[in-house]
Amino acid sequence: MKKAVVLLSGGLDSATTLALARRDGFDCHALSVDYGQRHRIELQAAARVAERLGARMHKVVKLDLRAFGGSALTDESIEVPTEATQGIPATYVPARNTIMLSLALAWAEVLGAQDIFIGANAIDYSGYPDCRPEYLRAFEAMANLATKAAVEGATMTIHAPLVNLTKAQIVLAGVRAGVDFSVTVSCYQPTAEGLACGRCDACRLRRKGFLEAGVSDPTRYASNAQA
Amino acid sequence: MKKAVVLLSGGLDSATTLALARRDGFDCHALSVDYGQRHRIELQAAARVAERLGARMHKVVKLDLRAFGGSALTDESIEVPTEATQGIPATYVPARNTIMLSLALAWAEVLGAQDIFIGANAIDYSGYPDCRPEYLRAFEAMANLATKAAVEGATMTIHAPLVNLTKAQIVLAGVRAGVDFSVTVSCYQPTAEGLACGRCDACRLRRKGFLEAGVSDPTRYASNAQA
Repeated sequence: MKKAVVLLSGGLDSATTLALARRDGFDCHALSVDYGQRHRIELQAAARVAERLGARMHKVVKLDLRAFGGSALTDESIEVPTEATQGIPATYVPARNTIMLSLALAWAEVLGAQDIFIGANAIDYSGYPDCRPEYLRAFEAMANLATKAAVEGATMTIHAPLVNLTKAQIVLAGVRAGVDFSVTVSCYQPTAEGLACGRCDACRLRRKGFLEAGVSDPTRYASNAQA
Repeated sequence: MKKAVVLLSGGLDSATTLALARRDGFDCHALSVDYGQRHRIELQAAARVAERLGARMHKVVKLDLRAFGGSALTDESIEVPTEATQGIPATYVPARNTIMLSLALAWAEVLGAQDIFIGANAIDYSGYPDCRPEYLRAFEAMANLATKAAVEGATMTIHAPLVNLTKAQIVLAGVRAGVDFSVTVSCYQPTAEGLACGRCDACRLRRKGFLEAGVSDPTRYASNAQA
Protein backbone atom coordinates (compact mmCIF):
# COMPACT_ATOMS: atom_id res chain seq x y z
CA MET A 1 0.00 0.00 0.00
CA LYS A 2 1.37 3.41 -0.95
CA LYS A 3 2.13 5.67 1.97
CA ALA A 4 0.81 9.22 2.03
CA VAL A 5 1.00 12.18 4.38
CA VAL A 6 -2.37 13.90 4.84
CA LEU A 7 -2.60 17.36 6.38
CA LEU A 8 -5.43 17.25 8.88
CA SER A 9 -6.84 20.28 10.67
CA GLY A 10 -9.92 18.63 12.11
CA GLY A 11 -12.22 20.57 9.79
CA LEU A 12 -14.68 19.43 7.15
CA ASP A 13 -12.32 19.78 4.19
CA SER A 14 -9.32 17.95 5.57
CA ALA A 15 -11.53 15.16 6.97
CA THR A 16 -13.02 14.65 3.51
CA THR A 17 -9.53 14.71 2.01
CA LEU A 18 -8.38 11.98 4.39
CA ALA A 19 -11.45 9.91 3.55
CA LEU A 20 -10.76 10.25 -0.18
CA ALA A 21 -7.10 9.29 0.26
CA ARG A 22 -8.18 6.20 2.22
CA ARG A 23 -10.79 5.34 -0.44
CA ASP A 24 -8.05 5.53 -3.05
CA GLY A 25 -6.01 2.98 -1.14
CA PHE A 26 -3.37 5.11 0.55
CA ASP A 27 -1.77 4.17 3.85
CA CYS A 28 -2.41 7.52 5.51
CA HIS A 29 -0.15 9.33 7.96
CA ALA A 30 -2.11 12.30 9.27
CA LEU A 31 -0.24 15.45 10.23
CA SER A 32 -1.62 18.30 12.29
CA VAL A 33 0.27 21.42 13.22
CA ASP A 34 -0.32 22.97 16.62
CA TYR A 35 0.48 26.49 15.55
CA GLY A 36 -0.86 28.29 18.57
CA GLN A 37 -4.46 28.31 17.41
CA ARG A 38 -6.89 30.21 19.53
CA HIS A 39 -8.47 26.90 20.45
CA ARG A 40 -7.29 23.36 20.99
CA ILE A 41 -10.69 22.01 20.02
CA GLU A 42 -9.73 21.58 16.38
CA LEU A 43 -6.69 19.48 17.31
CA GLN A 44 -8.90 17.23 19.40
CA ALA A 45 -11.23 16.97 16.40
CA ALA A 46 -8.25 16.07 14.19
CA ALA A 47 -7.33 13.19 16.51
CA ARG A 48 -10.90 11.86 16.41
CA VAL A 49 -11.10 12.19 12.63
CA ALA A 50 -7.76 10.40 12.14
CA GLU A 51 -8.91 7.51 14.28
CA ARG A 52 -12.38 7.19 12.77
CA LEU A 53 -11.09 7.27 9.21
CA GLY A 54 -8.33 4.74 9.79
CA ALA A 55 -5.15 6.79 9.52
CA ARG A 56 -2.17 4.63 10.49
CA MET A 57 -0.69 7.45 12.56
CA HIS A 58 -1.58 10.94 13.64
CA LYS A 59 1.29 13.22 14.45
CA VAL A 60 0.92 16.70 15.94
CA VAL A 61 3.89 19.01 15.44
CA LYS A 62 4.13 22.09 17.61
CA LEU A 63 5.14 25.31 15.86
CA ASP A 64 4.03 28.50 17.50
CA LEU A 65 3.21 30.91 14.69
CA ARG A 66 2.28 33.52 17.29
CA ALA A 67 6.02 34.26 17.11
CA PHE A 68 5.20 36.06 13.84
CA GLY A 69 1.55 37.01 14.36
CA GLY A 70 -0.10 38.85 11.49
CA SER A 71 -3.39 36.94 11.57
CA ALA A 72 -6.58 36.80 13.60
CA LEU A 73 -5.72 33.12 14.16
CA THR A 74 -2.24 33.79 15.56
CA ASP A 75 -2.61 37.16 17.26
CA GLU A 76 -5.19 37.55 20.01
CA SER A 77 -5.36 41.30 19.39
CA ILE A 78 -6.77 40.82 15.86
CA GLU A 79 -10.46 39.94 15.81
CA VAL A 80 -11.97 37.15 13.75
CA PRO A 81 -14.41 38.82 11.31
CA THR A 82 -18.02 37.82 11.83
CA GLU A 83 -19.30 38.93 8.47
CA ALA A 84 -18.04 38.78 4.91
CA THR A 85 -15.16 41.19 4.25
CA GLN A 86 -13.61 42.61 1.10
CA GLY A 87 -10.50 40.83 -0.14
CA ILE A 88 -8.42 38.34 1.81
CA PRO A 89 -9.77 38.24 5.39
CA ALA A 90 -7.91 38.75 8.68
CA THR A 91 -7.97 35.00 9.27
CA TYR A 92 -5.33 34.58 6.56
CA VAL A 93 -2.17 33.19 8.24
CA PRO A 94 1.00 34.30 6.42
CA ALA A 95 2.58 31.37 4.56
CA ARG A 96 0.50 28.84 6.48
CA ASN A 97 0.03 26.25 3.74
CA THR A 98 3.66 26.66 2.66
CA ILE A 99 4.79 25.89 6.20
CA MET A 100 2.37 22.97 6.58
CA LEU A 101 3.26 21.48 3.21
CA SER A 102 6.97 21.86 4.06
CA LEU A 103 6.47 19.88 7.24
CA ALA A 104 4.47 17.28 5.31
CA LEU A 105 7.32 17.11 2.80
CA ALA A 106 9.84 16.44 5.57
CA TRP A 107 7.75 13.65 7.05
CA ALA A 108 6.97 12.19 3.62
CA GLU A 109 10.65 11.98 2.82
CA VAL A 110 11.44 10.22 6.10
CA LEU A 111 8.55 7.78 5.52
CA GLY A 112 9.50 7.18 1.90
CA ALA A 113 6.09 8.50 0.83
CA GLN A 114 5.62 10.18 -2.54
CA ASP A 115 2.15 11.58 -1.97
CA ILE A 116 0.92 14.48 0.14
CA PHE A 117 -2.77 15.34 0.50
CA ILE A 118 -4.12 18.77 1.42
CA GLY A 119 -7.74 19.92 1.70
CA ALA A 120 -7.17 23.20 -0.13
CA ASN A 121 -10.18 24.53 -2.00
CA ALA A 122 -10.39 27.44 -4.40
CA ILE A 123 -14.16 27.65 -4.99
CA ASP A 124 -16.14 28.18 -1.78
CA TYR A 125 -13.16 29.50 0.14
CA SER A 126 -11.91 32.57 1.92
CA GLY A 127 -9.68 33.79 -0.89
CA TYR A 128 -6.46 32.53 0.68
CA PRO A 129 -3.73 32.68 -1.99
CA ASP A 130 -2.16 29.42 -0.84
CA CYS A 131 -5.32 27.46 -1.71
CA ARG A 132 -5.12 28.13 -5.45
CA PRO A 133 -4.17 25.42 -8.00
CA GLU A 134 -1.30 27.51 -9.41
CA TYR A 135 0.21 27.84 -5.95
CA LEU A 136 -0.09 24.09 -5.32
CA ARG A 137 1.58 23.31 -8.65
CA ALA A 138 4.44 25.68 -7.81
CA PHE A 139 4.88 24.01 -4.42
CA GLU A 140 5.00 20.60 -6.10
CA ALA A 141 7.62 21.81 -8.61
CA MET A 142 9.75 23.16 -5.75
CA ALA A 143 9.32 19.98 -3.72
CA ASN A 144 10.61 17.97 -6.64
CA LEU A 145 13.91 19.85 -6.44
CA ALA A 146 14.12 20.06 -2.65
CA THR A 147 14.83 16.60 -1.35
CA LYS A 148 17.32 13.78 -1.42
CA ALA A 149 14.46 11.54 -2.53
CA ALA A 150 13.86 13.83 -5.53
CA VAL A 151 17.56 13.78 -6.45
CA GLU A 152 17.37 10.00 -6.32
CA GLY A 153 14.49 9.99 -8.77
CA ALA A 154 11.36 9.87 -6.61
CA THR A 155 8.48 12.14 -7.61
CA MET A 156 6.39 13.94 -5.00
CA THR A 157 2.75 14.59 -5.86
CA ILE A 158 0.68 17.18 -4.03
CA HIS A 159 -2.95 16.01 -4.12
CA ALA A 160 -5.68 18.56 -3.53
CA PRO A 161 -8.77 16.52 -4.40
CA LEU A 162 -11.16 19.28 -3.28
CA VAL A 163 -9.52 22.16 -5.06
CA ASN A 164 -12.18 22.60 -7.73
CA LEU A 165 -15.24 21.48 -5.76
CA THR A 166 -17.94 23.66 -4.26
CA LYS A 167 -18.54 23.29 -0.53
CA ALA A 168 -21.75 21.39 -1.34
CA GLN A 169 -19.82 18.97 -3.55
CA ILE A 170 -17.26 18.49 -0.75
CA VAL A 171 -20.04 17.67 1.72
CA LEU A 172 -21.50 15.11 -0.70
CA ALA A 173 -18.07 13.60 -1.43
CA GLY A 174 -17.44 13.33 2.31
CA VAL A 175 -20.79 11.67 2.98
CA ARG A 176 -20.14 9.13 0.20
CA ALA A 177 -16.63 8.43 1.56
CA GLY A 178 -17.97 7.82 5.06
CA VAL A 179 -17.04 11.00 6.92
CA ASP A 180 -18.98 11.62 10.11
CA PHE A 181 -19.02 15.41 9.97
CA SER A 182 -20.33 15.63 13.53
CA VAL A 183 -16.78 15.08 14.80
CA THR A 184 -15.25 17.80 12.60
CA VAL A 185 -14.77 21.41 13.70
CA SER A 186 -14.49 24.25 11.17
CA CYS A 187 -15.25 27.27 13.37
CA TYR A 188 -12.46 29.81 13.89
CA GLN A 189 -13.73 30.72 17.35
CA PRO A 190 -15.65 27.86 18.95
CA THR A 191 -16.89 28.23 22.49
CA ALA A 192 -15.06 26.51 25.36
CA GLU A 193 -17.58 23.68 25.03
CA GLY A 194 -16.73 23.26 21.33
CA LEU A 195 -19.87 24.88 19.94
CA ALA A 196 -19.50 26.70 16.59
CA CYS A 197 -20.08 30.46 16.48
CA GLY A 198 -22.05 30.27 13.23
CA ARG A 199 -20.75 33.69 12.20
CA CYS A 200 -17.10 33.41 11.14
CA ASP A 201 -16.09 32.76 7.54
CA ALA A 202 -15.48 29.09 8.18
CA CYS A 203 -18.92 28.64 9.80
CA ARG A 204 -20.69 30.53 7.04
CA LEU A 205 -19.03 28.52 4.25
CA ARG A 206 -19.67 25.25 6.07
CA ARG A 207 -23.34 25.99 6.76
CA LYS A 208 -23.89 27.02 3.13
CA GLY A 209 -22.27 23.77 2.02
CA PHE A 210 -24.67 21.57 3.97
CA LEU A 211 -27.64 23.65 2.90
CA GLU A 212 -26.79 23.50 -0.80
CA ALA A 213 -25.94 19.80 -0.60
CA GLY A 214 -29.30 19.06 0.99
CA VAL A 215 -27.49 17.24 3.81
CA SER A 216 -28.57 17.89 7.39
CA ASP A 217 -25.96 19.91 9.22
CA PRO A 218 -24.69 18.06 12.33
CA THR A 219 -22.76 21.10 13.57
CA ARG A 220 -23.58 22.12 17.13
CA TYR A 221 -23.95 25.88 17.11
CA ALA A 222 -23.77 28.21 20.07
CA SER A 223 -27.17 29.49 21.21
CA ASN A 224 -26.37 33.02 20.02
CA ALA A 225 -25.37 31.85 16.52
CA GLN A 226 -27.19 33.38 13.58
CA ALA A 227 -29.76 31.04 12.08
CA MET B 1 15.81 51.22 4.54
CA LYS B 2 14.48 48.02 2.98
CA LYS B 3 13.65 45.30 5.46
CA ALA B 4 14.97 41.79 4.97
CA VAL B 5 14.71 38.48 6.78
CA VAL B 6 18.08 36.70 7.04
CA LEU B 7 18.27 33.01 7.98
CA LEU B 8 21.02 32.70 10.55
CA SER B 9 22.40 29.42 11.85
CA GLY B 10 25.43 30.80 13.63
CA GLY B 11 27.80 29.26 11.11
CA LEU B 12 30.32 30.82 8.75
CA ASP B 13 28.06 30.97 5.70
CA SER B 14 25.02 32.56 7.30
CA ALA B 15 27.17 35.08 9.20
CA THR B 16 28.76 36.15 5.91
CA THR B 17 25.31 36.35 4.33
CA LEU B 18 24.08 38.64 7.10
CA ALA B 19 27.17 40.83 6.71
CA LEU B 20 26.60 41.10 2.95
CA ALA B 21 22.93 41.98 3.44
CA ARG B 22 23.93 44.70 5.93
CA ARG B 23 26.62 45.97 3.53
CA ASP B 24 23.96 46.23 0.83
CA GLY B 25 21.87 48.44 3.08
CA PHE B 26 19.18 46.07 4.31
CA ASP B 27 17.49 46.46 7.68
CA CYS B 28 18.09 42.87 8.77
CA HIS B 29 15.76 40.69 10.82
CA ALA B 30 17.68 37.54 11.68
CA LEU B 31 15.78 34.27 12.04
CA SER B 32 17.12 31.10 13.65
CA VAL B 33 15.21 27.89 13.99
CA ASP B 34 15.71 25.78 17.09
CA TYR B 35 14.94 22.48 15.42
CA GLY B 36 16.19 20.20 18.15
CA GLN B 37 19.82 20.35 17.10
CA ARG B 38 22.22 18.12 18.94
CA HIS B 39 23.73 21.26 20.43
CA ARG B 40 22.53 24.65 21.50
CA ILE B 41 25.97 26.12 20.89
CA GLU B 42 25.11 27.18 17.35
CA LEU B 43 22.04 29.09 18.54
CA GLN B 44 24.20 30.97 21.04
CA ALA B 45 26.60 31.72 18.19
CA ALA B 46 23.69 32.98 16.07
CA ALA B 47 22.70 35.42 18.82
CA ARG B 48 26.26 36.75 19.05
CA VAL B 49 26.57 37.07 15.27
CA ALA B 50 23.24 38.91 14.99
CA GLU B 51 24.33 41.40 17.62
CA ARG B 52 27.83 41.96 16.28
CA LEU B 53 26.64 42.47 12.71
CA GLY B 54 23.87 44.88 13.64
CA ALA B 55 20.71 42.92 12.94
CA ARG B 56 17.69 44.88 14.16
CA MET B 57 16.15 41.78 15.71
CA HIS B 58 17.02 38.15 16.20
CA LYS B 59 14.12 35.76 16.54
CA VAL B 60 14.47 32.08 17.43
CA VAL B 61 11.53 29.90 16.46
CA LYS B 62 11.22 26.49 18.07
CA LEU B 63 10.26 23.61 15.80
CA ASP B 64 11.33 20.19 16.92
CA LEU B 65 12.25 18.28 13.76
CA ARG B 66 13.10 15.29 15.93
CA ALA B 67 9.37 14.59 15.52
CA PHE B 68 10.29 13.35 12.04
CA GLY B 69 13.95 12.32 12.48
CA GLY B 70 15.66 10.98 9.39
CA SER B 71 18.96 12.85 9.87
CA ALA B 72 22.07 12.64 11.99
CA LEU B 73 21.18 16.17 13.14
CA THR B 74 17.67 15.29 14.31
CA ASP B 75 18.00 11.67 15.41
CA GLU B 76 20.50 10.82 18.15
CA SER B 77 20.72 7.22 16.91
CA ILE B 78 22.22 8.29 13.54
CA GLU B 79 25.92 9.13 13.73
CA VAL B 80 27.48 12.24 12.22
CA PRO B 81 29.98 11.01 9.58
CA THR B 82 33.59 11.89 10.39
CA GLU B 83 34.97 11.36 6.92
CA ALA B 84 33.79 12.11 3.40
CA THR B 85 30.93 9.86 2.29
CA GLN B 86 29.49 8.99 -1.11
CA GLY B 87 26.40 10.97 -2.13
CA ILE B 88 24.26 13.09 0.17
CA PRO B 89 25.50 12.58 3.74
CA ALA B 90 23.55 11.52 6.85
CA THR B 91 23.59 15.14 8.07
CA TYR B 92 21.02 16.00 5.40
CA VAL B 93 17.82 17.11 7.19
CA PRO B 94 14.71 16.33 5.12
CA ALA B 95 13.17 19.54 3.73
CA ARG B 96 15.19 21.71 6.09
CA ASN B 97 15.72 24.71 3.84
CA THR B 98 12.14 24.49 2.60
CA ILE B 99 10.89 24.66 6.19
CA MET B 100 13.31 27.47 7.11
CA LEU B 101 12.51 29.52 4.02
CA SER B 102 8.78 28.99 4.68
CA LEU B 103 9.17 30.43 8.16
CA ALA B 104 11.22 33.30 6.76
CA LEU B 105 8.45 33.89 4.22
CA ALA B 106 5.87 34.09 6.99
CA TRP B 107 7.90 36.60 8.97
CA ALA B 108 8.77 38.61 5.86
CA GLU B 109 5.11 38.96 5.00
CA VAL B 110 4.22 40.14 8.51
CA LEU B 111 7.12 42.65 8.42
CA GLY B 112 6.27 43.85 4.91
CA ALA B 113 9.73 42.71 3.74
CA GLN B 114 10.29 41.62 0.15
CA ASP B 115 13.75 40.13 0.58
CA ILE B 116 14.92 36.91 2.22
CA PHE B 117 18.59 35.98 2.53
CA ILE B 118 19.93 32.44 2.91
CA GLY B 119 23.55 31.28 3.09
CA ALA B 120 23.04 28.34 0.71
CA ASN B 121 26.09 27.33 -1.24
CA ALA B 122 26.39 24.85 -4.10
CA ILE B 123 30.16 24.73 -4.62
CA ASP B 124 32.06 23.67 -1.46
CA TYR B 125 29.04 22.04 0.12
CA SER B 126 27.74 18.73 1.33
CA GLY B 127 25.59 18.00 -1.70
CA TYR B 128 22.32 18.99 -0.05
CA PRO B 129 19.68 19.29 -2.78
CA ASP B 130 18.06 22.33 -1.14
CA CYS B 131 21.23 24.39 -1.58
CA ARG B 132 21.15 24.37 -5.39
CA PRO B 133 20.25 27.46 -7.47
CA GLU B 134 17.45 25.64 -9.31
CA TYR B 135 15.84 24.74 -5.98
CA LEU B 136 16.10 28.33 -4.74
CA ARG B 137 14.53 29.65 -7.94
CA ALA B 138 11.66 27.19 -7.57
CA PHE B 139 11.11 28.29 -3.96
CA GLU B 140 11.03 31.91 -5.07
CA ALA B 141 8.48 31.14 -7.81
CA MET B 142 6.28 29.34 -5.28
CA ALA B 143 6.65 32.15 -2.74
CA ASN B 144 5.43 34.62 -5.33
CA LEU B 145 2.13 32.74 -5.52
CA ALA B 146 1.81 31.91 -1.82
CA THR B 147 1.06 35.10 0.01
CA LYS B 148 -1.44 37.90 0.34
CA ALA B 149 1.46 40.29 -0.32
CA ALA B 150 2.14 38.53 -3.63
CA VAL B 151 -1.52 38.74 -4.65
CA GLU B 152 -1.36 42.45 -3.87
CA GLY B 153 1.60 42.87 -6.22
CA ALA B 154 4.68 42.62 -3.98
CA THR B 155 7.57 40.52 -5.26
CA MET B 156 9.60 38.31 -2.93
CA THR B 157 13.26 37.82 -3.77
CA ILE B 158 15.28 34.94 -2.34
CA HIS B 159 18.91 36.10 -2.12
CA ALA B 160 21.64 33.47 -1.89
CA PRO B 161 24.75 35.63 -2.32
CA LEU B 162 27.12 32.72 -1.61
CA VAL B 163 25.52 30.17 -3.89
CA ASN B 164 28.26 30.19 -6.52
CA LEU B 165 31.27 30.96 -4.30
CA THR B 166 33.92 28.54 -3.11
CA LYS B 167 34.40 28.28 0.64
CA ALA B 168 37.63 30.28 0.27
CA GLN B 169 35.77 33.04 -1.57
CA ILE B 170 33.14 33.04 1.19
CA VAL B 171 35.84 33.46 3.85
CA LEU B 172 37.35 36.37 1.93
CA ALA B 173 33.95 37.99 1.37
CA GLY B 174 33.21 37.63 5.07
CA VAL B 175 36.52 39.16 6.12
CA ARG B 176 35.94 42.12 3.78
CA ALA B 177 32.41 42.61 5.13
CA GLY B 178 33.65 42.61 8.72
CA VAL B 179 32.66 39.18 10.00
CA ASP B 180 34.50 38.01 13.11
CA PHE B 181 34.58 34.30 12.34
CA SER B 182 35.77 33.49 15.85
CA VAL B 183 32.18 33.83 17.08
CA THR B 184 30.73 31.52 14.42
CA VAL B 185 30.23 27.77 14.88
CA SER B 186 30.04 25.40 11.92
CA CYS B 187 30.75 22.05 13.60
CA TYR B 188 27.95 19.45 13.61
CA GLN B 189 29.10 17.98 16.90
CA PRO B 190 30.97 20.53 19.01
CA THR B 191 32.12 19.57 22.49
CA ALA B 192 30.19 20.80 25.52
CA GLU B 193 32.74 23.65 25.73
CA GLY B 194 31.97 24.66 22.14
CA LEU B 195 35.17 23.29 20.59
CA ALA B 196 34.90 22.06 16.98
CA CYS B 197 35.48 18.37 16.26
CA GLY B 198 37.57 19.10 13.16
CA ARG B 199 36.30 15.92 11.51
CA CYS B 200 32.68 16.35 10.43
CA ASP B 201 31.77 17.59 6.96
CA ALA B 202 31.13 21.11 8.19
CA CYS B 203 34.52 21.29 9.94
CA ARG B 204 36.40 19.89 6.95
CA LEU B 205 34.80 22.33 4.50
CA ARG B 206 35.37 25.24 6.85
CA ARG B 207 39.01 24.40 7.52
CA LYS B 208 39.68 23.96 3.79
CA GLY B 209 38.11 27.38 3.17
CA PHE B 210 40.42 29.22 5.56
CA LEU B 211 43.42 27.31 4.24
CA GLU B 212 42.68 28.10 0.58
CA ALA B 213 41.82 31.72 1.37
CA GLY B 214 45.12 32.18 3.18
CA VAL B 215 43.22 33.49 6.19
CA SER B 216 44.21 32.28 9.64
CA ASP B 217 41.53 29.97 11.05
CA PRO B 218 40.19 31.28 14.38
CA THR B 219 38.22 28.08 15.04
CA ARG B 220 38.94 26.48 18.39
CA TYR B 221 39.31 22.77 17.76
CA ALA B 222 39.07 19.97 20.29
CA SER B 223 42.42 18.50 21.28
CA ASN B 224 41.66 15.24 19.51
CA ALA B 225 40.75 16.96 16.23
CA GLN B 226 42.66 15.97 13.11
CA ALA B 227 45.27 18.50 12.06
